[in-house]
Amino acid sequence: MGILSQIHSPDDVKKLSMEELELLAAEIRDFLIENISKTGGHLASNLGIVEMTIALHKVFDTSKDRLVFDVGHQSYVHKIITGRKDEFPSLRKSGGISGFLKPSESIHDACITGHASNSVSVALGMARARTLCEEKYSVISVTGDGALTGGMAYEGLSDAGQSGEPMIIILNDNEMSIAKNVGAMTAYLAKLRLKRKYLRFKRGYHKIMRRTKVGRFFDKGIHGVKNAFKSAFLPSSFFEDMGFAYLGPADGHDIEYMTYLFKLARDMKRPVVIHLITKKGKGYEHSEAHPQEYHGVGSFDIREGVSSPCGINSFSAAFGDELLKIAEENERVCAITAAMTSGVGLEQFSENFPKRFFDVAIAEEHAVAMSAGLAARGMIPVCAVYSTFLQRAYDMIIHDVAISGQHVVFAVDRAGIVGEDGETHHGAFDVSFLADVPNMRIFAPANFLEVRSMLRTAIDENGPVAIRYPRGKEGTFKNDAFIPGNGCSVLSEGADLTIVAYGMLINNVLEAATFAKKDGIECEILKLNIIKPLDESVIIESAKKTGRIMVVEDVINHGSVAEAISSMLLKNGIKAELIAINAGDSFVTHGDKETLYKMLKIDSENVYKAIVEACKK
Amino acid sequence: MGILSQIHSPDDVKKLSMEELELLAAEIRDFLIENISKTGGHLASNLGIVEMTIALHKVFDTSKDRLVFDVGHQSYVHKIITGRKDEFPSLRKSGGISGFLKPSESIHDACITGHASNSVSVALGMARARTLCEEKYSVISVTGDGALTGGMAYEGLSDAGQSGEPMIIILNDNEMSIAKNVGAMTAYLAKLRLKRKYLRFKRGYHKIMRRTKVGRFFDKGIHGVKNAFKSAFLPSSFFEDMGFAYLGPADGHDIEYMTYLFKLARDMKRPVVIHLITKKGKGYEHSEAHPQEYHGVGSFDIREGVSSPCGINSFSAAFGDELLKIAEENERVCAITAAMTSGVGLEQFSENFPKRFFDVAIAEEHAVAMSAGLAARGMIPVCAVYSTFLQRAYDMIIHDVAISGQHVVFAVDRAGIVGEDGETHHGAFDVSFLADVPNMRIFAPANFLEVRSMLRTAIDENGPVAIRYPRGKEGTFKNDAFIPGNGCSVLSEGADLTIVAYGMLINNVLEAATFAKKDGIECEILKLNIIKPLDESVIIESAKKTGRIMVVEDVINHGSVAEAISSMLLKNGIKAELIAINAGDSFVTHGDKETLYKMLKIDSENVYKAIVEACKK
Repeated sequence: MGILSQIHSPDDVKKLSMEELELLAAEIRDFLIENISKTGGHLASNLGIVEMTIALHKVFDTSKDRLVFDVGHQSYVHKIITGRKDEFPSLRKSGGISGFLKPSESIHDACITGHASNSVSVALGMARARTLCEEKYSVISVTGDGALTGGMAYEGLSDAGQSGEPMIIILNDNEMSIAKNVGAMTAYLAKLRLKRKYLRFKRGYHKIMRRTKVGRFFDKGIHGVKNAFKSAFLPSSFFEDMGFAYLGPADGHDIEYMTYLFKLARDMKRPVVIHLITKKGKGYEHSEAHPQEYHGVGSFDIREGVSSPCGINSFSAAFGDELLKIAEENERVCAITAAMTSGVGLEQFSENFPKRFFDVAIAEEHAVAMSAGLAARGMIPVCAVYSTFLQRAYDMIIHDVAISGQHVVFAVDRAGIVGEDGETHHGAFDVSFLADVPNMRIFAPANFLEVRSMLRTAIDENGPVAIRYPRGKEGTFKNDAFIPGNGCSVLSEGADLTIVAYGMLINNVLEAATFAKKDGIECEILKLNIIKPLDESVIIESAKKTGRIMVVEDVINHGSVAEAISSMLLKNGIKAELIAINAGDSFVTHGDKETLYKMLKIDSENVYKAIVEACKK
Repeated sequence: MGILSQIHSPDDVKKLSMEELELLAAEIRDFLIENISKTGGHLASNLGIVEMTIALHKVFDTSKDRLVFDVGHQSYVHKIITGRKDEFPSLRKSGGISGFLKPSESIHDACITGHASNSVSVALGMARARTLCEEKYSVISVTGDGALTGGMAYEGLSDAGQSGEPMIIILNDNEMSIAKNVGAMTAYLAKLRLKRKYLRFKRGYHKIMRRTKVGRFFDKGIHGVKNAFKSAFLPSSFFEDMGFAYLGPADGHDIEYMTYLFKLARDMKRPVVIHLITKKGKGYEHSEAHPQEYHGVGSFDIREGVSSPCGINSFSAAFGDELLKIAEENERVCAITAAMTSGVGLEQFSENFPKRFFDVAIAEEHAVAMSAGLAARGMIPVCAVYSTFLQRAYDMIIHDVAISGQHVVFAVDRAGIVGEDGETHHGAFDVSFLADVPNMRIFAPANFLEVRSMLRTAIDENGPVAIRYPRGKEGTFKNDAFIPGNGCSVLSEGADLTIVAYGMLINNVLEAATFAKKDGIECEILKLNIIKPLDESVIIESAKKTGRIMVVEDVINHGSVAEAISSMLLKNGIKAELIAINAGDSFVTHGDKETLYKMLKIDSENVYKAIVEACKK
């Protein structure tokens, strides 16, 4: 690590020669593989963007210039260069550095990121503010080709292109986002890549022309001619139609040429798209061969590589497996997802039932409205999306699905606290926003068996139905399959305190109650199987008996089950005490689940303490 | 009304000759102007689509074929033809026909509509279901050029084009949506319109060729040659790149030619875009001259026309006027909207401060994320969007604005019950979804003076802030300007019952309390100025005194202020009775505000009855 060890800030990068920068790139690759194999994280996308990030720091000053990474999972190299190299062993861990951009971590991080397709919008806002405030700095967004499949990116590009606002949009085209892209933009980009031959010629031409004074003179003078040549012989550019200057496609691993393009774009003082072709997973044989599996990984053995992108032993896998069986029995059942096929456990489904499987790319709005159309004409669509990304389709769930009572089943994966990905990725809002929707029913399975049985029930229902379940493994809690209509199970009876919980947290509550029992406290544990509509009579009866209810959740307080129960109790004239333990009115940081549970006081020990506290009074 | 009087169903249209269809179009125009001048409604868009709708019914059978209008405000002609002509005096009135598509009204209505840019997605879902169910019918979406500015339309087109699924997308290009379109698609469509000269030639050519058997033979044989000609001499089509067959642009007022194109598209058995040029407001001099003012209108004098698109005497106007003044004083203040400039009262602002005004077209997601970028770099963005459309930006409010605590001011217009536009347009969810957002503060002005003073306070705050206000005029309730920090005003003291309300409903509550006073019931009226965070101490104190709280709102129950107060009371150990009067867990139909208020029992009389009932116990 000869050169990397000397890199403490972007200034150190600026001093290096092109040859040294190439060496640095190689060292950074080794560093990434070495570190991520231990901590887990996003590997392939960062390996693909090493040279590009180095070139960006060679040309721009990210302490002033604003560099907006779309999604932000590809910002590791940026973090290494901007003084956070030594913190990589703590990547994504509690108290450690985030796996995404975070302004509170560094002045070099322009904004919070995590969700896709927003970077052009945010960067355009920044560029406009810069101009209105009469300040001077560059604004650059780095957007993957995957993010371009989202409609929001199109909205941003459309406005940015016409704005005339100086800004640079780097299209990091690795011909693949999380999953293989689908849709028109992908086809279009493929077409553009054909232009590379021309560009290679052009690059050689520029190199020659820039060597002499006469050459530089002609290089400028010939500009108009070149344009005429380009429009005559090259496919017309969608980006140029939008109002951008378009540079590329160029090799996203050629540091020297990229620094040339970046300077050129910066000095053009208008909206510019730079189209760079990169290889996702570059430099590590396993990730080059299977970039999708190395998108987001846990720790792995460097020589062996990772075994599976989504553990077999997960709620997602149980869902995917059961849906597969149901689809075999019922040919009306189809599945929809938005660039999360393997993440939500639908790979096998997509292979067995390709005609009934729709991966619509990063387009949650379309996924939900299209599901509404399928439902309106006799199919039973199961729309599987991570909780945090389903936020994008709040309007479509209301407008396209619920008003007309379409029977769409929402499989809400990664519900609740997800852990290492942090603020932007926790499924902390779905209980609130799904329960807003009139006539929505929400199931909350607590283990794999319940995912399976509740999914079957959800499919047999009518109208909008959601089934929400967490990332990862089940706990020790086991029970019989869900029986339709059983909104609430009384797991234990007790006269001192009613505890309400659902999903995985039932494990913590049961353990806490066992501790409490040793202190002589008898808890009545209500496990909600359905969180909307509430099984009011069981809750009321228990509240009357114990006089105090504790509700334990890993979501925000507003719109939570705790609030719904409060309202229900008061409406029914039940005067019980209520203790709500949840994420309150705040965002939850990144870290391992256990630590975050402790932080929210929803781990067994803290719940036990709360029980003792509540029963003191 | 010679021909129109004989039209009772689409079958009657199918029988007519081309000449009779032209006459029918003229009669329908008169009928529309005559009726909408009395009932109010969407005039210009319907005048523009008369011939297109007739041609659609000439070719398709909408009792089986599925016709999906984007937004649906342009479905009046469709309603006239499909047997609802005699119900037009009841258009948008309580108990009358809806101003949008509604399957419960007619088998000819394919789905619920109201929001923009979703029709391709919904239609694609229907087409896929049709194919999977092995049924036979056509699916047609009618999408305006305005709707194409929304990213969701791009998501839908991208998937539909590549699907190969037989479906027809009619692009109703009137070169204008609610406001003048902006962005790349608009520029692109303008380019396409240049092709019309070629198409006029082509049409004449087809007419000649179809007259003889030999001509028809050659017409088919020459297809390949024509394509070669097209791609050589015409600008390449974005839609063709996406995978669509592209027909047009053609005259959207030429019934005969449209019937030809529709049949052609139907028989192609693949995704087809038909690009039709129409004139919004066609056939009525006032609306031709000012189509924007005739987008949605109240009743008007046919000879004089309407006076103003958005009443001067409205919350929107008060907001727009005050923001103008603030912007004069503070050059960091800027305004953002999404194709609602005049609706939200920002016309003057857009004229006085063009550099600080951004109309981003129908793109709420981008509007909010772009605002986040502006805020991050020193501007104070005020993002003004109707409550129902802000649902689209739920994720961006959380992800781009709130996580990093950006100071974006959301001016949430049309909050609460809006009246005639019905289910898809009520602002019934914003209290719920805005209060979900950590650290969001929500102001609820009750009159124009409060809009002004609260807007000033909101702009002076930090972090995400919303100010929500209804459509239309203020009531009789007057008070002093809002004083920062005053979350809750006690309007009257009383020991029998606490009533909590905010915004315009304070008028109803005050009147109801006056009635109740005559019965000897003393109500303590709490007017919430800030609905998040709640002024807990005032509410608790009052609840302790009266022992019962009534919360009156015109939004859904889940996530409402009633729920937040319930939760807050129980958390604080206050055992009061709570009566929540609101829209519950259901969608609210269309009709005049008064009737809808009665239906929800939030009108003065019903609130009075509820007070009496509550105090009986």
